Amino acid sequence: MDKTLGIFAPGLLGASLGMAAHAHGLFARVLVWARREQARSECEAAPWCDAASTDLAEIARQSDFIVLCPPVDAIPALFSRLADHLREGAVVTDVGSTKEQICNTIAAGPRGEAFIGSHPMAGSEKSGMAAARADLFAGAPCVVTPLPAHDPQRLRAVQDFWRALGGMVQTVSPAEHDEIVAAVSHLPHIAAAALARVALGTHGRQPFCGSGLRDTTRIAAGDPALWVEIIRQNRPHILRQMQLLQAELADWQNLLASDDAEAWRERLTAARTLRQTLSSVASGRSQTTP
Amino acid sequence: MDKTLGIFAPGLLGASLGMAAHAHGLFARVLVWARREQARSECEAAPWCDAASTDLAEIARQSDFIVLCPPVDAIPALFSRLADHLREGAVVTDVGSTKEQICNTIAAGPRGEAFIGSHPMAGSEKSGMAAARADLFAGAPCVVTPLPAHDPQRLRAVQDFWRALGGMVQTVSPAEHDEIVAAVSHLPHIAAAALARVALGTHGRQPFCGSGLRDTTRIAAGDPALWVEIIRQNRPHILRQMQLLQAELADWQNLLASDDAEAWRERLTAARTLRQTLSSVASGRSQTTP
Repeated sequence: MDKTLGIFAPGLLGASLGMAAHAHGLFARVLVWARREQARSECEAAPWCDAASTDLAEIARQSDFIVLCPPVDAIPALFSRLADHLREGAVVTDVGSTKEQICNTIAAGPRGEAFIGSHPMAGSEKSGMAAARADLFAGAPCVVTPLPAHDPQRLRAVQDFWRALGGMVQTVSPAEHDEIVAAVSHLPHIAAAALARVALGTHGRQPFCGSGLRDTTRIAAGDPALWVEIIRQNRPHILRQMQLLQAELADWQNLLASDDAEAWRERLTAARTLRQTLSSVASGRSQTTP
Repeated sequence: MDKTLGIFAPGLLGASLGMAAHAHGLFARVLVWARREQARSECEAAPWCDAASTDLAEIARQSDFIVLCPPVDAIPALFSRLADHLREGAVVTDVGSTKEQICNTIAAGPRGEAFIGSHPMAGSEKSGMAAARADLFAGAPCVVTPLPAHDPQRLRAVQDFWRALGGMVQTVSPAEHDEIVAAVSHLPHIAAAALARVALGTHGRQPFCGSGLRDTTRIAAGDPALWVEIIRQNRPHILRQMQLLQAELADWQNLLASDDAEAWRERLTAARTLRQTLSSVASGRSQTTP
């Protein structure tokens, strides 16, 4: 392929997708825009990166396919800064964990048609380029969120990109995305954090913690700054899912307070059956899905 | 060592400790008591087992150190069946996930002084001997729960046994054990099961599930029959911990409903800091702590 990939503000996800695109030979060149000097020199020293620069307009002009990787709250502003410099036919996507605010804001502005949102559900409780891996997206859900006005050709380019990196592409509207991830990603984060506080909040319990608590709370070690922005962008859906979890727990509490052990068994079995519907791809990998 | 280890009713934990004791050369012989013919022939075919039998009295008479591995509700009855046949000085322990009912029941009966409870916090959402591993206990918390009347020499024998298998020995009373594991093991199981039902209870969400949900719900795939008995034996402590989790979640809900993002960040950071106090031993191993 003779095209150029532009990665803006790479961290763990941006560096991983640079590595993966390089490993799969998807582009002729991979360029990076980064503000921090250290980030630029790390990228330039890596085999997957051809050049890194602070010149936003220049990187935008040279790129056919662009991925925006800053924290969710910074994505629309970054797009608007580079909109004027985009090539005709350029395709822009992102890696943000929320989609509705980002996609609607960008669609309403200049060159909005060039942007189709993405959310690759891969990551780690670690963050930063040092934790990047070329296989980060292998088997991971990669959600693509077009709006009705979007050009099918651009949509296909975004879908093909994630598929080429090994992702399992799912295509839904930004609103559907945000509702679903509130349940399967944001709620688990809050639940893990709440559980960590209850289970570990009493002094001296660490020596009694086995892998069950480790697994259930692993994602609670994720970066608080990222999660503050995710909550800010998806609060109504998250609060609704929290209500559902609390109602579910209240229900378990009534069940367990009764002596109907057969009802306990049925409830435990129902939960197990649902858990078993998740295939084991990517399990035990110490990843999270912020 | 010229002593004999007797393993009664081995499943995942019993077979793993047989393997581990053999691998470390802790005993001259390892004997198994099992009711099912298939279990006996599997054990006899394995290098760690010298003989397997249905003759409970005979295996008890020949063993210096005995580990009882049936489900928690069957442990006291199993002990009382073999009590009359124990050698002078024999040491008996178990692998049950709850301790107060088991230890008090056995202590009140004949030869009760021979039994000191244990809870090796290792396991898997898989069960059965096929999943057994010699390194199952390496780095795992192994809780030993003597009563005040217990002989220090027997206590040391039980502690030394788990330590020799690589376990991190913790010694507390049965009542303390049950309170602690309600928080760090039983509550996480209920929370994982409740979360699985909320996150996955709506049709079509599986393709959007990343490793975050996988990790937080992994233990919900554990055997419901085991968990019914654990709940039965530790219900007051579990219900109390569920109340604490509900109160914590209600608190998060109020926090997130407010616009005080700095308070969100503080709460997320507090949870992260607590999670980071868990060392990474045994993490990502797909184990649970039933």
